[in-house]
Amino acid sequence: MPWGIGEVGDRAEALDRVVRRARERVPLYRDLHAGIDSTELADLPTCTKADLRPYGFFPLSTAGPAEAHRVCATSGTTGPRLFVGYSRADWEERTAARLAHRAAYAGFGEGDVLLNTHGYGLWVGGPALDLLAHASGAGLLPAGPGGVERILDWLAELPITGMSATPSFMRFLVDRALAAGVDPASWPLRVGFIGGECASAALRRSVIEAFGGDFRWQELYGSTESGGPILGWSSATTPEGGVLLLDTEEFVVELLHPDRDEPVEPGELGEITITTPFRELSPLIRYRTRDLTVALPDRTEEGYPAVEALRGRVDDALKVRGALVYPTVIEELVVARLAPGAEFRIVVDRAPGELDELTVVVEHEGNEAELDELRAALAEALVMRVEVEPVPLRSLERFAGKAKRVVDRRPRD
Amino acid sequence: MPWGIGEVGDRAEALDRVVRRARERVPLYRDLHAGIDSTELADLPTCTKADLRPYGFFPLSTAGPAEAHRVCATSGTTGPRLFVGYSRADWEERTAARLAHRAAYAGFGEGDVLLNTHGYGLWVGGPALDLLAHASGAGLLPAGPGGVERILDWLAELPITGMSATPSFMRFLVDRALAAGVDPASWPLRVGFIGGECASAALRRSVIEAFGGDFRWQELYGSTESGGPILGWSSATTPEGGVLLLDTEEFVVELLHPDRDEPVEPGELGEITITTPFRELSPLIRYRTRDLTVALPDRTEEGYPAVEALRGRVDDALKVRGALVYPTVIEELVVARLAPGAEFRIVVDRAPGELDELTVVVEHEGNEAELDELRAALAEALVMRVEVEPVPLRSLERFAGKAKRVVDRRPRD
Repeated sequence: MPWGIGEVGDRAEALDRVVRRARERVPLYRDLHAGIDSTELADLPTCTKADLRPYGFFPLSTAGPAEAHRVCATSGTTGPRLFVGYSRADWEERTAARLAHRAAYAGFGEGDVLLNTHGYGLWVGGPALDLLAHASGAGLLPAGPGGVERILDWLAELPITGMSATPSFMRFLVDRALAAGVDPASWPLRVGFIGGECASAALRRSVIEAFGGDFRWQELYGSTESGGPILGWSSATTPEGGVLLLDTEEFVVELLHPDRDEPVEPGELGEITITTPFRELSPLIRYRTRDLTVALPDRTEEGYPAVEALRGRVDDALKVRGALVYPTVIEELVVARLAPGAEFRIVVDRAPGELDELTVVVEHEGNEAELDELRAALAEALVMRVEVEPVPLRSLERFAGKAKRVVDRRPRD
Repeated sequence: MPWGIGEVGDRAEALDRVVRRARERVPLYRDLHAGIDSTELADLPTCTKADLRPYGFFPLSTAGPAEAHRVCATSGTTGPRLFVGYSRADWEERTAARLAHRAAYAGFGEGDVLLNTHGYGLWVGGPALDLLAHASGAGLLPAGPGGVERILDWLAELPITGMSATPSFMRFLVDRALAAGVDPASWPLRVGFIGGECASAALRRSVIEAFGGDFRWQELYGSTESGGPILGWSSATTPEGGVLLLDTEEFVVELLHPDRDEPVEPGELGEITITTPFRELSPLIRYRTRDLTVALPDRTEEGYPAVEALRGRVDDALKVRGALVYPTVIEELVVARLAPGAEFRIVVDRAPGELDELTVVVEHEGNEAELDELRAALAEALVMRVEVEPVPLRSLERFAGKAKRVVDRRPRD
């Protein structure tokens, strides 16, 4: 740690150059690095999206939007809306090269056709997956989100071999196909480029099984700030995607304690923090992604450092009776015990003068012993009492876009 | 006529090559050209979108979607949904070059920033205007449609010098700004790349005036089939866009009688019909666009053939008491006589056993003499009686997307 320094010959010089340029041209870094001359990573402060708020529309940029080959923006759901510009080289060369690598890694390229269901406009997902198709030599059908019935028709009738989607949308499509008596295994689709939110191993498993077991769930991890879904990708050696490889050819990656600028040990929960030695327009320097994971001790056979599948975000953590609870930890335990495609909700509530109550509402038609087993597993993992409340199958609403499974009913302080 | 043959040295050979290739690889042309060996344009049949219906998802393509750098699709509102694939050269070289030409024509390029409000996904507008920004060296903010309040904020606060939009959305934005007490002339915006539907001269004039008169209304005309909005563009010598230049560097263009494969004379209403000598993946051979216009007799000083602003579409023509009525003809007369931004509707109805009745509902607060003048102008242009019914200003619904001003209430036969 940090991963990615010194692995490529010119990495240290590139980092030195990008830090000096950022201090000169980006008011954010000029202020953050005031009084610091060193460009050694350990001497530099970290920053988060919240630090960018006072710096206008393009807080990370070395130049204005006229220099931006493309601007993307975060949704603004977790903090201020953030515009990130990429130079032509940032996007058409660097992001494209990393996406070409991912496509090749998934065995996807010439002769293939990608159906892209990610969103376009200022959202990075749509244009990035278009770029993956272009960089890999595959054909591109840029569908965008929505239109489930049309997409089911196209998957059945066109030679679509790859599809990009959120995990929720992937699951939603499979559910709709099965409900209509259509077997997803009969489609030519064999690779899913999946991203945009966390997915439990059980959800991944249920989709792969619906495709007859040969479907490649190729998770891509990243964000607007990282220049698209190029920061990490699921290892082919763990077909259900439990292990994420980190792209230390493009980024310097650190796993830091969520509250302190200190590296965590393998096995400990840490926040993925990235630096971009090669970025022209929007350099990131020790930028905390808010994404939490656990480092695995050894490099994978591919040579990249590996972490466990994301555990959630610093911002998503629920504080229940003073303890941090990560929804993904609950999801992992719940979904493993449910029928394929069954939904659930995590409800936190507090009666006046009482302690927080954590309830998991699950679509469940098994027996009481199974529910007791789930209660015990949750209590052990979270070290607190968790209520489990069964409801009939298909009684909870489904998500076509990003899932929202946490319902916090506690009175605001 | 036809325009565009023999204007470039290798044009005739390119046309010969593309016709032979289309006959070999595209079942549509194999069938249409059965028994024809000539590749002379006059010897070949024309075709329309309706002819493509029996030929599957990609009726125009010489290869499957795996060869498509990008697929676009028509909305399917006027006939079957049509998929059109472009090879990398079709899109990144040819369409890009034509869009770069349009940007340069409008004085738009490096140092500029384009806000693109056209739709993405399978719709050609969004990706084509992204390409215009890239090909011109301008910065790109790919906003997509919707979010009027955000767009008003960005236009006021960011150095956005160009914007792509439909005429309706352009008018809608100006209305919303004026209603909020904001002067559009205070924005840095100075070029609008406008397309996607017909616009009356009065609508164009009202938008240009709202910007203080210096705003460049750069209309771009084209469609999914033509490979984006590259078929025609408004002449700079007619600032309000009444004259459209046709791109005879990229297309062979004919103006044909709407019912017969015969050229019309200057001054007559004709259907724009195009052939693509250089297209790789989806060649068009005497493809009737359904768009109607009138040829102007002389070349413009730019050297391109010119036509009047579009008069509407063959499919849009209303048959009223047996005569063809083009809504744009009505719009032209109506909008010239209304307050800026006032709305109107064209209503056709028929009582049982009676003749068709044509009524124009207008937002109008002037005097009865003005309405009589409008009645007389409409009756003269259409050679039939037209009812004019005034309603209060702002009482009709506004359009954020494509306008739908024709209301046909006649019972279906």
